Amino acid sequence: MNSIDYRYSDYAGRLTPSAIRALASVASPDDTIRLGPGEPDSELFALDEFRDAIGGLFSDQKEGRSALQYAPTAGSLELRQHICRHMAARGVEAAPENVLLVSGAQQGIHLCCAAFLNAGDRALVQTPTYPGALQVLAACGAEVADMDEAGSEKAGLLYAMSTFQNPTGVTLSQSERRRILGIARDRDAIVVEDDPYEALRFDGEPARCLLSLDAEDRTIDETRTLYLGTFSKSIAPGLRLGWIVGARPVIEKLTLMKQAEDLQVGTLAQAALVRLLDGGLEPLTDRLRAAYRTRRDGMLEALRTEFGNRGTWNVPDGGFFVWVTLPTDMDAVSLLHEAAPLGVTFVPGAAFTHDGACRNALRLSYSSVPVERMAEAVRRLARAFDTLIG
Amino acid sequence: MNSIDYRYSDYAGRLTPSAIRALASVASPDDTIRLGPGEPDSELFALDEFRDAIGGLFSDQKEGRSALQYAPTAGSLELRQHICRHMAARGVEAAPENVLLVSGAQQGIHLCCAAFLNAGDRALVQTPTYPGALQVLAACGAEVADMDEAGSEKAGLLYAMSTFQNPTGVTLSQSERRRILGIARDRDAIVVEDDPYEALRFDGEPARCLLSLDAEDRTIDETRTLYLGTFSKSIAPGLRLGWIVGARPVIEKLTLMKQAEDLQVGTLAQAALVRLLDGGLEPLTDRLRAAYRTRRDGMLEALRTEFGNRGTWNVPDGGFFVWVTLPTDMDAVSLLHEAAPLGVTFVPGAAFTHDGACRNALRLSYSSVPVERMAEAVRRLARAFDTLIG
Repeated sequence: MNSIDYRYSDYAGRLTPSAIRALASVASPDDTIRLGPGEPDSELFALDEFRDAIGGLFSDQKEGRSALQYAPTAGSLELRQHICRHMAARGVEAAPENVLLVSGAQQGIHLCCAAFLNAGDRALVQTPTYPGALQVLAACGAEVADMDEAGSEKAGLLYAMSTFQNPTGVTLSQSERRRILGIARDRDAIVVEDDPYEALRFDGEPARCLLSLDAEDRTIDETRTLYLGTFSKSIAPGLRLGWIVGARPVIEKLTLMKQAEDLQVGTLAQAALVRLLDGGLEPLTDRLRAAYRTRRDGMLEALRTEFGNRGTWNVPDGGFFVWVTLPTDMDAVSLLHEAAPLGVTFVPGAAFTHDGACRNALRLSYSSVPVERMAEAVRRLARAFDTLIG
Repeated sequence: MNSIDYRYSDYAGRLTPSAIRALASVASPDDTIRLGPGEPDSELFALDEFRDAIGGLFSDQKEGRSALQYAPTAGSLELRQHICRHMAARGVEAAPENVLLVSGAQQGIHLCCAAFLNAGDRALVQTPTYPGALQVLAACGAEVADMDEAGSEKAGLLYAMSTFQNPTGVTLSQSERRRILGIARDRDAIVVEDDPYEALRFDGEPARCLLSLDAEDRTIDETRTLYLGTFSKSIAPGLRLGWIVGARPVIEKLTLMKQAEDLQVGTLAQAALVRLLDGGLEPLTDRLRAAYRTRRDGMLEALRTEFGNRGTWNVPDGGFFVWVTLPTDMDAVSLLHEAAPLGVTFVPGAAFTHDGACRNALRLSYSSVPVERMAEAVRRLARAFDTLIG
C-alpha cells in the first residue's frame, strides 16, 4: 500500500509546537516546584458556588433544557449585559451588540488575527509577549516585529497587553498606553488588547484600557481597538469563556467567523456562569486577589532573601508573574537545565519572543505555588545559578 | 473624526451570512409550526442524568477542581477511550492518539478544511449538502464542485455525509461509499466524513463508515479519511463536544491548530460527559431513537395523507430530515413565502447547494415537532402549494 503524503495548507504548515511545551519535558524530581505554568490555582475555584449554580440550573426544567440546547453565536444576552457593566466600570461604554462571547481569550486572539491579517502582513508586538499570540501570528503568516523597532510602514495589527503583562507582570502608564495607540494609528493598524489578568489587581488604581482611550474622541463603533477579556483567571479556565468588545461592524464580522468555525461558546458553561454571577463578580475575585497577593509577596520576599543580586526583577501590581533578568551573558535555557534536576522549573525568556531575544530572562509564576514553598523554590533557583556560574 | 476603513483579511472577506438565517426572518404567525431548524428537541434531553452527573462531579473536590481547570488540547483520555470503543463498534480500530476532541463537529469541519485547503484549491461536495460546510469552504476560498460533476483534476478535500444525510436524510449503500472513496483517491483528496446523526438510527443495520472502508487495506495511520462525530444530536449540543478520528500525524497537526485557535474543548463539559457516559451511551439514545422515530413516522404519514402527489420524498432510516422534491418548475423559496403566513416554515433546497441547484426541493425537519402537530403542519404546506400553483 502506498502511504499518503498529507499536503497541508500554508496555514497549517506554518504551525509548529510551542517552545514552552518542548521545555516542559526537561526531567526533574517528583518534588519539583513548578514556577512555569501560568495557571490559576484550582484550590481557589469557587466549587460550592458552582455546585449551587448548576444544581439550581437543572432544578428548573426550562433553564436546564436551554442550557443543553444550541444558542445564538453572539452569546447569552445576560452575559453580554454583565460584560457591558464590567467594561463600563473600566471606562468603556459598550452595548451588547459590541460584545461577542468567545471560547477563551485565545480564540479572541485567533479570530482577530484571522480577521485582519493576510500572509505577509506586518504585525506589531511587545517584546517579550504572550507565546500563544506569537503562535497565532506565525500561523497567519504575519511578519512579526517589535512595535518599537519596526519602522513607520503600515501594519495590519498590533497585539498588546497593558496590565500585568504576560510574561513581565508590567503595567503600562497612561502615557505609554497613549503612545501604543499612536503607533497603531500611525501604522493604520487594528489594536488587539489582551487583558486577561485585570480583575486580579493587588495594588494601585485601574488604568484606562486602550479601548477606553481609543474611544475618548469617537464612538466605540469607530474605534480600531478590540478588547479581549476572559473569565479564565477570575472564575475558571475550564469554562472556556472570554469576550471581545469593539466596533459593531467588526463584532458582526467576528461573529460570522465564529459561527463558521464552531457555531458558539458552550451553552452549559454560559448558563452556569450567568447563575454564578448573580451575586456579582467581586465576591468571587476578592478571595483570589487576597490569595495571589500573598503569593506575590512571598515570591518577592524569597527573591530578595534567596536570590539577592543574582538578577533584577519588577514588582507586579497584580496577575501571576515576576520577570527576572539575569546578567547579560547568562542563558536562561542553560539555567533551566541546571534548575530542573534541583527541583525547580520556570519558562526561559526567549520563549516569549518572536526573535529569540530575552535569552537572559525568565518568567516565574507564583499563581499555583503555596507561599510556604516560595523560599525553597527560589533557593533551588539560586543554587542552579551558582552551579551554572561555576 | 475620520472613520476607520476596516480592511479585513481575504479569509474574513469571503465570509457572508448564511442563507438559512436570512430566510428565518420571513414573517409568520405566532402558532407557526417550524420545520426549518435541525435542532434536537430539548424536551428529550437527559436533565435528571445531567443533574446527577454534575452534582456528583462537584461533590468530589478533586474532580470538581479538575473540571474547572485547563486541560490538554487533545481532550480527556477517558472520553477519547470512550470514543475509541464507540468507533470500534463501527468497524474502526482507533487508539486515543487517533482522536481529537473538538467544540462540535462544526469545528471539526473548520479545522479539517483549514488544514488542507489553500485559496483556489478544489473541494468536492455532495449536492445538496450541509450549508455550514459550504460556509467554511467559501471562507477557505475553495473552488467548490459537485463530486459527480467535477472532472478528474486533483482536489484538496472531499466533504461527505453518508448516513441520514443533512439535508436529504439519505443513507448511502456500501458500494456508493466505496465509490466516494474511489473519487477521493483518484483526485488525491482528503475525505472529511461528517457523521452527526449515526446514533439516531430507526431502521436497518449500520453501514460501515468511510473511515472503516478506507482502513480495510491499510492501518488507520495511513488513511486519508477524517471522521467527524459529535454528541450534539445523541446527548446535547450545548456541550459543544465532537471529535475527529484519523491518521495520527494528521490528528497531531489538527491538535496544534486547535491549541492555537482556542486551546481546548471546555473542561466542565468534558467532565460532565464522562460522568454521564458511566452508564453508557445506549440507554440515553434509546429514548431519543424512539421519540424521533415516532416523529418521522408521523411526518411520513402526514405527507402521504396531506401532501399526496404534490411532491415526492424519501424514507429516512434515521436522523432528523425528510427531503421533498416538488415539480421541476416550482421554486421552494416562493413556496416558503406562501407557507410562512399560513403558519409553517422550512428550509428551501437551494440553501444546501453551492450553486443554487435544488430550487424545487425543501428540507422538512421533524425533530422538534410534536407528532400530533405533523398533520396540521403538512396541511398548511399543501395549502401553500395549492395557492402558489394558483
